[in-house]
Amino acid sequence: MQLAKVLGTVVSTSKTPNLTGVKLLLVQFLDTKGQPLERYEVAGDVVGAGLNEWVLVARGSAARKERGNGDRPLDAMVVGIIDTVNVASGSLYNKRDDGR
Amino acid sequence: MQLAKVLGTVVSTSKTPNLTGVKLLLVQFLDTKGQPLERYEVAGDVVGAGLNEWVLVARGSAARKERGNGDRPLDAMVVGIIDTVNVASGSLYNKRDDGR
Amino acid sequence: MQLAKVLGTVVSTSKTPNLTGVKLLLVQFLDTKGQPLERYEVAGDVVGAGLNEWVLVARGSAARKERGNGDRPLDAMVVGIIDTVNVASGSLYNKRDDGR
Amino acid sequence: MQLAKVLGTVVSTSKTPNLTGVKLLLVQFLDTKGQPLERYEVAGDVVGAGLNEWVLVARGSAARKERGNGDRPLDAMVVGIIDTVNVASGSLYNKRDDGR
Amino acid sequence: MQLAKVLGTVVSTSKTPNLTGVKLLLVQFLDTKGQPLERYEVAGDVVGAGLNEWVLVARGSAARKERGNGDRPLDAMVVGIIDTVNVASGSLYNKRDDGR
Repeated sequence: MQLAKVLGTVVSTSKTPNLTGVKLLLVQFLDTKGQPLERYEVAGDVVGAGLNEWVLVARGSAARKERGNGDRPLDAMVVGIIDTVNVASGSLYNKRDDGR
Repeated sequence: MQLAKVLGTVVSTSKTPNLTGVKLLLVQFLDTKGQPLERYEVAGDVVGAGLNEWVLVARGSAARKERGNGDRPLDAMVVGIIDTVNVASGSLYNKRDDGR
Repeated sequence: MQLAKVLGTVVSTSKTPNLTGVKLLLVQFLDTKGQPLERYEVAGDVVGAGLNEWVLVARGSAARKERGNGDRPLDAMVVGIIDTVNVASGSLYNKRDDGR
Repeated sequence: MQLAKVLGTVVSTSKTPNLTGVKLLLVQFLDTKGQPLERYEVAGDVVGAGLNEWVLVARGSAARKERGNGDRPLDAMVVGIIDTVNVASGSLYNKRDDGR
Repeated sequence: MQLAKVLGTVVSTSKTPNLTGVKLLLVQFLDTKGQPLERYEVAGDVVGAGLNEWVLVARGSAARKERGNGDRPLDAMVVGIIDTVNVASGSLYNKRDDGR
């Protein structure tokens, strides 16, 4: 999975019926220092992530593993809201300290 | 999925029979500011997208989730026409304002 | 799929038996202006594409959708010979005019 | 698979139930000289890898091949701890010599 | 598939049991001129490729198509040893001439 930050939302009314009821988030990928990358995904959301929260994004067929999503044309999914990222030199991210 | 803009159409008559009847669009990927990227796909279309419209493109096995497409050699599909993209700082895109 | 041009052929005799009888083409990817990119694939061919022809290349599990290819270790396949690519500003490519 | 080094750990409590009990490692990809790349994954771990160890990371549907992981939304998995990497010019890496 | 050159071998004893008995090669990808790229894979080998040989590497689910590999967490596989690569301007590679 990739570390990402919720940047916004995407709305589409003319879409394949298989996407009905899926909330779509624009998530920007982060590097291992927490800095934003160019890469992003428009991902489905099963965890209720909010704006600016750090999340885990699964891609490919992994995005359809949630019950009921097997037939949806999803290739990216927010599967978790991140609490902490810890590296050797200390804490890279802690949701409690996050005033961003 | 990726944000993309419909750039044109691709026609192929000498093709695998499994692609018969699939409309193929040339879609250019956009970044999170709405600017065109180098990357693109030739994607199938199930939503009737028109030239210059902003669309959502699913890749990989997700592209074959539409009923009847399971056996087609498709790895990219336009699955929705985008109405709005909203980010923290406001509206990135609104189809109603789109005179491009 | 990606736009590509047939650059040459690849021959391998010491290979997995599952690849027996598959013609392998070296195809170079093109950008949305028709210029060659660094990226390429060695792809199977089911449409009889010739040298320098513009083709459509499907990647991933899509490459094994042709009948009889389900068990082959193919991750790229030429699935169509391109006749025309049309964009807003006119014709990007037309096979009839192609003397390249 | 890719060569990678364990950089840290990621904790998520608000996540899809399918990820419950999966230990998530932040692994940074290495190049063929053993130098760190920008690319990384947040990967599941089935081998008990420790901080700074060199590991093998499988991506895509391969990440769900371990028994019990078939329904988890995993797209990256640590599948082995590396003992040695040997190239023509000698040893690129040997776990015994690794004081890093 | 990608053109690649066998650079070395990777040994891992602490690994998922599903990888037992799989020989792992470090293979460096080549461009369409035969020059080495930064990209590589640690790939399984079913054809007995030797050091410095040019090989074909399949990625993704294609890597598990060989009988007995369906449940292994493999995302890259050496599926053929290359004899020749021929392009419009002549021979790019011929194993017989290869003293490299």
